[in-house]
Amino acid sequence: MTHEPPSHEMHASRWGDPASAGPLPDATRDLVELAFGIRESPAAVDVTVPVPSLSPGQLEELRVLLGPDHVLTGDEERRLRTRGKSTPDLLRARAGDVADAPDAVVRPGSHAEVEALLALAVRHHLAVVPFGGGTSVTGGLAPRREGFAGVLSIDLVRMKALREVDTVSMTAVLEPGLRGPEAEALLAEEGLLLGHYPQSFEYASIGGFAATRSSGQSSAGYGRFDAMVVGLTLATPQGTLELGSSPANAAGPDLRQLVLGSEGAFGIITAVRVRVRRLPAQKVYEAWQFGSFSEGADAMRHLAQNALMPTVLRLSDETETALNLASQSDVGGGTTGGCLMIVGHEGPDVAGRRALVSAALEGLGGTPLGEERGDAWVAGRFHAPYLRDSLLDVGVLAETLETATFWADRERLYTAVKDALTAELGDRTIVLCHISHVYETGCSLYFTVATPQAEDPLEQWRAAKARASQAMIDAGATITHHHAVGTDHREWFAQEIGPVGVSILRAVKAELDPTGVLNPGVMIP
Amino acid sequence: MTHEPPSHEMHASRWGDPASAGPLPDATRDLVELAFGIRESPAAVDVTVPVPSLSPGQLEELRVLLGPDHVLTGDEERRLRTRGKSTPDLLRARAGDVADAPDAVVRPGSHAEVEALLALAVRHHLAVVPFGGGTSVTGGLAPRREGFAGVLSIDLVRMKALREVDTVSMTAVLEPGLRGPEAEALLAEEGLLLGHYPQSFEYASIGGFAATRSSGQSSAGYGRFDAMVVGLTLATPQGTLELGSSPANAAGPDLRQLVLGSEGAFGIITAVRVRVRRLPAQKVYEAWQFGSFSEGADAMRHLAQNALMPTVLRLSDETETALNLASQSDVGGGTTGGCLMIVGHEGPDVAGRRALVSAALEGLGGTPLGEERGDAWVAGRFHAPYLRDSLLDVGVLAETLETATFWADRERLYTAVKDALTAELGDRTIVLCHISHVYETGCSLYFTVATPQAEDPLEQWRAAKARASQAMIDAGATITHHHAVGTDHREWFAQEIGPVGVSILRAVKAELDPTGVLNPGVMIP
Repeated sequence: MTHEPPSHEMHASRWGDPASAGPLPDATRDLVELAFGIRESPAAVDVTVPVPSLSPGQLEELRVLLGPDHVLTGDEERRLRTRGKSTPDLLRARAGDVADAPDAVVRPGSHAEVEALLALAVRHHLAVVPFGGGTSVTGGLAPRREGFAGVLSIDLVRMKALREVDTVSMTAVLEPGLRGPEAEALLAEEGLLLGHYPQSFEYASIGGFAATRSSGQSSAGYGRFDAMVVGLTLATPQGTLELGSSPANAAGPDLRQLVLGSEGAFGIITAVRVRVRRLPAQKVYEAWQFGSFSEGADAMRHLAQNALMPTVLRLSDETETALNLASQSDVGGGTTGGCLMIVGHEGPDVAGRRALVSAALEGLGGTPLGEERGDAWVAGRFHAPYLRDSLLDVGVLAETLETATFWADRERLYTAVKDALTAELGDRTIVLCHISHVYETGCSLYFTVATPQAEDPLEQWRAAKARASQAMIDAGATITHHHAVGTDHREWFAQEIGPVGVSILRAVKAELDPTGVLNPGVMIP
Repeated sequence: MTHEPPSHEMHASRWGDPASAGPLPDATRDLVELAFGIRESPAAVDVTVPVPSLSPGQLEELRVLLGPDHVLTGDEERRLRTRGKSTPDLLRARAGDVADAPDAVVRPGSHAEVEALLALAVRHHLAVVPFGGGTSVTGGLAPRREGFAGVLSIDLVRMKALREVDTVSMTAVLEPGLRGPEAEALLAEEGLLLGHYPQSFEYASIGGFAATRSSGQSSAGYGRFDAMVVGLTLATPQGTLELGSSPANAAGPDLRQLVLGSEGAFGIITAVRVRVRRLPAQKVYEAWQFGSFSEGADAMRHLAQNALMPTVLRLSDETETALNLASQSDVGGGTTGGCLMIVGHEGPDVAGRRALVSAALEGLGGTPLGEERGDAWVAGRFHAPYLRDSLLDVGVLAETLETATFWADRERLYTAVKDALTAELGDRTIVLCHISHVYETGCSLYFTVATPQAEDPLEQWRAAKARASQAMIDAGATITHHHAVGTDHREWFAQEIGPVGVSILRAVKAELDPTGVLNPGVMIP
């Protein structure tokens, strides 16, 4: 399976390419009508973005630096780089609120141009926000504007090279503007793959994966993105940071792990050296059924703690299973009962591992359901955000949130977050959950929420999200397993790492970005 | 196999318990005589340590804080916490140079007492150096004294609890003063193990493992110490940093990886939550022979890149194999020729994995040599430092240094370091090397050097170490894979992470330790 890169940018107020979305499946529509009632939303309001605040002199400097083709100030170009793709972002875009539009979109073609851009931004006190795929769901693309002369969106679209391949060390150097499918297509020409498939894969970029410490749907087999990175280059206003002398070492703190997850607040990542693997000759995805979420989670834990990890491992709770959300093409359609687990094996020869994993799962109460449902999951694995647009169209507020904890706290966290959401949003709310990332010591919990849209859906979601977020922190869990901090999670992130942790991040920020132009207000509390 | 904790502290000028050392094996002595000539060293000079510079008032404050039993100012107690166990450290100790002795040894019993001690140190401008096993070989226990009112050695010997065990999440909370065998003995009572066996295992401590980003002889199977840590507590002069909300997350940079490797310069680690495993029911160690170091290294690379990692994987080069250094009890004795590989399997049932690994090794040109040599390696795995003392006794300068790189650069790095050492130390120098840590993308290289001691062995080694260190950096490799930075590696560490990397570390240090009392001069360039 190769992934064709999407042909154009994402829609300004919807996910991806609306032509790929298709109408709401009949079964889903029926279900929505039954649960919430259908209220067709008004068409999105189309408004003109604010007049850019950059002076003619500043624009001229940018044009001299990058060439006139790479300094864009048109309404559409700015609208398309306004905020990300969280449900609040979409609601604001639909309502015609483009107050966060950047003043200009600039497209550097090299590390040197990024450095020069940062120097220019410091000189003119312009806030800069790096732009890869524009898929943030936590406000990572909406920096603080107050106090700055303007906001520049640094679109890394021209930095798309596979710069180096080393098939002895099995590493590759990728530029940050490569989107997921583009990176995989270039690597596939060399018989290699990265194996990083977050749900945003079709649009999200290598730089974004690194900056947000992303995790993919095949993380059980290929690892989180932060585990793939062995080196990186960061352009900062204070100079370039080049890291990656070795796979691992004892040479002080691992500064790579300080750059990973820095969300543009410490600098702009201009290259990433990643560990790569051989393209798998075989891929098998299958479904399993477990009696309950707890039983299925215990089975996952057994696999993780006994070195039996498949490539993909995902478990839906009873509600998500009943709604058949794992098969995006048939949500609300036929279901299996119990809890659905998706198990995927990729490799040169998967038979041996598959036999071991299958034997373990059967021993733990699992019933094999065959490959058809596994293949259905693969076919729809990047489709969920389109469904959200369709739900918003019919008056349903839909959004996701996620966390992670240690195994012993899994059930408590699950209940706490569900309770927080339904307490805030009311009884007609549907909360689904799945586990999609598994470690020896714990797992992620990914929640999908759907509820009838209130008068003020932004405030409705803000309150629900705040309550669920506080429940995560109160349970000792993380505020985000793979969506990053952005602006939306800062308040709880501060609680998670405490005042000393916050002071460390602020000190690093002050050192690398003394005038504070780098994605101000993002990540650092 | 359980490991009995050593009954007392290490000797002041030799490794470990000299009673465990035994005389130089005959074969080794013959070899030394042949290669270098035997020159019995003078007995170590015994001198009185300098008069402590602490005032009576300061000592009284310390006694009030910790109780009089836990403020030690005796000569012997201070001598035993002077520097670490590098060859230069031993040479200075043998020569009676105890100028780096701390002014007092203090023994806090809790996190709160550590915090209070740090406050006191700031108040009186006393430098503090955390002390666990005293096994540093990079000068990590010799902070800068100039500009401070005195130096306190904070011995964590009273903080030895296994504070918490969670057999669902498979984590345990360990206190920093636990030495390797003590931690394993406590975990073994619960049927668990950590699996971290650096050569210093018998003396080194949990806090030291974390502070130096340590790696063990079974890292192929159990991972580096930094990969085992899921949470930690750091006492700093600015308050406590508590990290570890989840196995992994996207909540900003991973600050755990900033504390790991911080070598006492950012604070004192007072607790570590580690991932643990079930005690293995089976353990098999065997030896393999390869025609050359390159052939053996390629075989290791194949295992690492094909998910075939055993628990222990170690390869000696031709010279180390010829000297039979992998078997400490018979160095210089019978050898196998070619290059010796040690392969260890530990687990509930090792047969399946062993068969796969063995088939792969045979396919790559390996010849199985059976378990006897594997067991001999296990029996002697912690013994090498004793051999060094015996060599120093007969006028041979012996020391180790280590690095890591990506597979494609392995051979170039190997040659560069060997050439640097022999160029500086002369033709009679013997340089041995082994690979003991293997990753998908690269490996470590561990060198042992032996040469006839010159008039000024400290200067002799300084020059050789400097030349070899520069060769590592010039080859793009790390200055240390598992010995940490200490004071000895700072100059090259600065080159490795560059000026922006250094500025980040200094900024974090300034934030957490504004008066600079934490292990001054250690780690941060």
